[in-house]
Amino acid sequence: MKKKKIVVIGGDAAGMSAASKIRREQPDFVIIVFEKSEFTSYSACGIPYFISGKVENLEDLIVRSPSEFIKKYKIDVKILHEVLELDTDNNKVLVHNYSDKTQFWETYDELLIATGGKPFCPDVANRTADGIFGIQTLNSGKKVATYISEYQPKIAVIIGGGYIGLEMAEALILKGIKVTIVNRSTEVMSTLDPDMGKKVNEVLQNLGVTIYNSESLAYFDEQLGKVISVVTDKRTLQTDLVILGMGTAPNTSFLQKSKIKLVENGAIKVNRMQRTNIKNVWAAGDCAETKNLVSKKNFYIALGTVANKTGLVAGTNMAGGDLKFPGVVATAVCKICVYEIARVGLLESECKALKVDFVYTIIKSKTRAHYYPEAKDIWVKLIAEKRSGKLLGGQIIGEEGAAKRIDVLATALHSKLTLQNIIDLDLSYAPPFSPVWDPVQTAARKLIGMI
Amino acid sequence: MKKKKIVVIGGDAAGMSAASKIRREQPDFVIIVFEKSEFTSYSACGIPYFISGKVENLEDLIVRSPSEFIKKYKIDVKILHEVLELDTDNNKVLVHNYSDKTQFWETYDELLIATGGKPFCPDVANRTADGIFGIQTLNSGKKVATYISEYQPKIAVIIGGGYIGLEMAEALILKGIKVTIVNRSTEVMSTLDPDMGKKVNEVLQNLGVTIYNSESLAYFDEQLGKVISVVTDKRTLQTDLVILGMGTAPNTSFLQKSKIKLVENGAIKVNRMQRTNIKNVWAAGDCAETKNLVSKKNFYIALGTVANKTGLVAGTNMAGGDLKFPGVVATAVCKICVYEIARVGLLESECKALKVDFVYTIIKSKTRAHYYPEAKDIWVKLIAEKRSGKLLGGQIIGEEGAAKRIDVLATALHSKLTLQNIIDLDLSYAPPFSPVWDPVQTAARKLIGMI
Repeated sequence: MKKKKIVVIGGDAAGMSAASKIRREQPDFVIIVFEKSEFTSYSACGIPYFISGKVENLEDLIVRSPSEFIKKYKIDVKILHEVLELDTDNNKVLVHNYSDKTQFWETYDELLIATGGKPFCPDVANRTADGIFGIQTLNSGKKVATYISEYQPKIAVIIGGGYIGLEMAEALILKGIKVTIVNRSTEVMSTLDPDMGKKVNEVLQNLGVTIYNSESLAYFDEQLGKVISVVTDKRTLQTDLVILGMGTAPNTSFLQKSKIKLVENGAIKVNRMQRTNIKNVWAAGDCAETKNLVSKKNFYIALGTVANKTGLVAGTNMAGGDLKFPGVVATAVCKICVYEIARVGLLESECKALKVDFVYTIIKSKTRAHYYPEAKDIWVKLIAEKRSGKLLGGQIIGEEGAAKRIDVLATALHSKLTLQNIIDLDLSYAPPFSPVWDPVQTAARKLIGMI
Repeated sequence: MKKKKIVVIGGDAAGMSAASKIRREQPDFVIIVFEKSEFTSYSACGIPYFISGKVENLEDLIVRSPSEFIKKYKIDVKILHEVLELDTDNNKVLVHNYSDKTQFWETYDELLIATGGKPFCPDVANRTADGIFGIQTLNSGKKVATYISEYQPKIAVIIGGGYIGLEMAEALILKGIKVTIVNRSTEVMSTLDPDMGKKVNEVLQNLGVTIYNSESLAYFDEQLGKVISVVTDKRTLQTDLVILGMGTAPNTSFLQKSKIKLVENGAIKVNRMQRTNIKNVWAAGDCAETKNLVSKKNFYIALGTVANKTGLVAGTNMAGGDLKFPGVVATAVCKICVYEIARVGLLESECKALKVDFVYTIIKSKTRAHYYPEAKDIWVKLIAEKRSGKLLGGQIIGEEGAAKRIDVLATALHSKLTLQNIIDLDLSYAPPFSPVWDPVQTAARKLIGMI
């Protein structure tokens, strides 16, 4: 009997989670992975910490190397191979080999697309000048670090006030670089409501960051091929370095001529088993859409956790299993210097768009018992459905120990808990860890009085 | 119309939560609180941190003073008043006033018993010698701190290796006192399984604590009224100071002649509304039993969180509301120097007693991304029902950032989640907060392979 042949496009979190799972379940399958870069299974989320110097070696960000996959898992990882085209009628992909600059068609029985995301940037003038970097791959991290040590930039402009923008702000602050953020929304962190975003704004200003909100990138100026300023719709900012933190787009342009169904932003449409519209083609990670369990609608979210989970689900199913990925509650967390920021579920604006009648509150509490020396400020915002008291979303800002509390709210959203359920939760308490009412419960207690 | 008259016995967490709630709901009720000590609404859990010097003033542990309750909330708090007897046939309590040494009967329409717990200690020889302290009330904390500053003890013996024992060990270590723990069980922290308790044992030894497990207190030796040694069933330990950490017993001996139904250990039997067997008598906090939501059996657990919650429920119902306290999942957390210990749900031994067919695993992971400099070791033990994969319990030991993860497991137990549900949870991830699979999910992934 012919051995089943699996091809995986993309050797990072989703692709290698799937490939490893298939190998564990099916020792005889042939598994080929095409990876454009020279790395596999690395933590893209760790790049800011390499740039800041907190993580010394780029190699520390790699969980498993290509040779480890080849030797230990018998997964045929081919690095520096990019898939250019997909022919689902004939079950084959066109591959470009960067080492010998050849191209070839590879056939498959089952295919997984796990090409991840790419930094979003409009096609403005001088977009490709030196000193302008997206933060998405280990190579991009390496390039930024090299650029900083080579040119010793004094000032930097970060375009975008989201997670990548904030994490890179910390990295550059730690390198002694003066940071300016240009941000399109009214407040930074548009994944929070503006009232909480305003607090993040204050936090950033405390850290010495200059912020221009409600301001858009127009184009870049360059000199001798190197970026020298960022021009927005309101001003010109001289700079030695530009970081693009304008979000992530699915890396799926090579599929545009294929029969794979994409949604509006280019993400691959998948069902709960991570199967595309073509029966033997699967997709996982930042190139695919996923389901928001709170809004009950499909959406796009590019996160390492989702990549790992959907990769595992795709791998299980490609190996003959039957596993469904229920979806996410849009949990995200971010640290900038001593400040922690977390969010989950729906924003006020999303509730309005869904025509949900909601109430919300923001409370200020402490991360520990009020008398405990390390007690720090924490703000918790909760949003709940007015009629039922069902939790809809939560946002947290605070110092050490604040953000991981979002996981209780994430678990509550998965379990469709109400505010009364949250008040009843037996959350852990001792003075070094929490006030006797955990801040998320204090928020629930206040909000339940409003429904 | 005659105003309803509420009497509350005990002015700490449960009693004052109830009294405050009644006042908010019923501005016209007469509310009298009898409190034996001179303090109200204080954090008994904070006492070790006052003794260690981390908290400077004993007053910092007080949330609200008697005069604040009297003036701001119109709650008639009578400090230094102890209730000696309860006559439920005639709706009255016999009160002793320590200030003027008088006794009087006070009538009530509704009564709340919130007399809390008392440190458990067998009635051995020289039990009342100087230098032997339980840690339960602010006064006991004050006495220990005074004794330490007056006599400058060099060595101390702590009887009991539970939460109070460990927290007091930290306090005494910080005061430069050499600590020995005498512990009856095979390992310290008998609220954990022995395999995890063994790790806590190692942690304590790393901190320089001497531990004698499987060893029981026989009696104390004294000289001129002061304790000079602890005699166990195996040895004599010279000491300058003894701390009793042998657990908490319900403070209900004054009820033994009353018609209030007590369970075996002396805790007050209550229904889910916190009502006793007598219609207009309620109980809350450490003097009452509560329900374990995992075993579905009533049990006794003395914790500040439960006291606050059951006080709020009793107060709501005494004010005419209709609120039920669902019960707890036995969440507890404790810190000793850099180590964090947490537990929730059932132990292996409890599963066996309930004849539940279970599986368990212990995994070692990191509190942050493996490459993040502040990443510390964390051990997670999970116990699940074999047939259904339903979570039954969890235990965590680790350094900074480890313990609060127990809250996800507590929420999971409240929501009756399975291991697959836990794997599917959208928990927050960024390198400074967690590995991409949170350690509780890594444990669930390993354990699901065993069912």
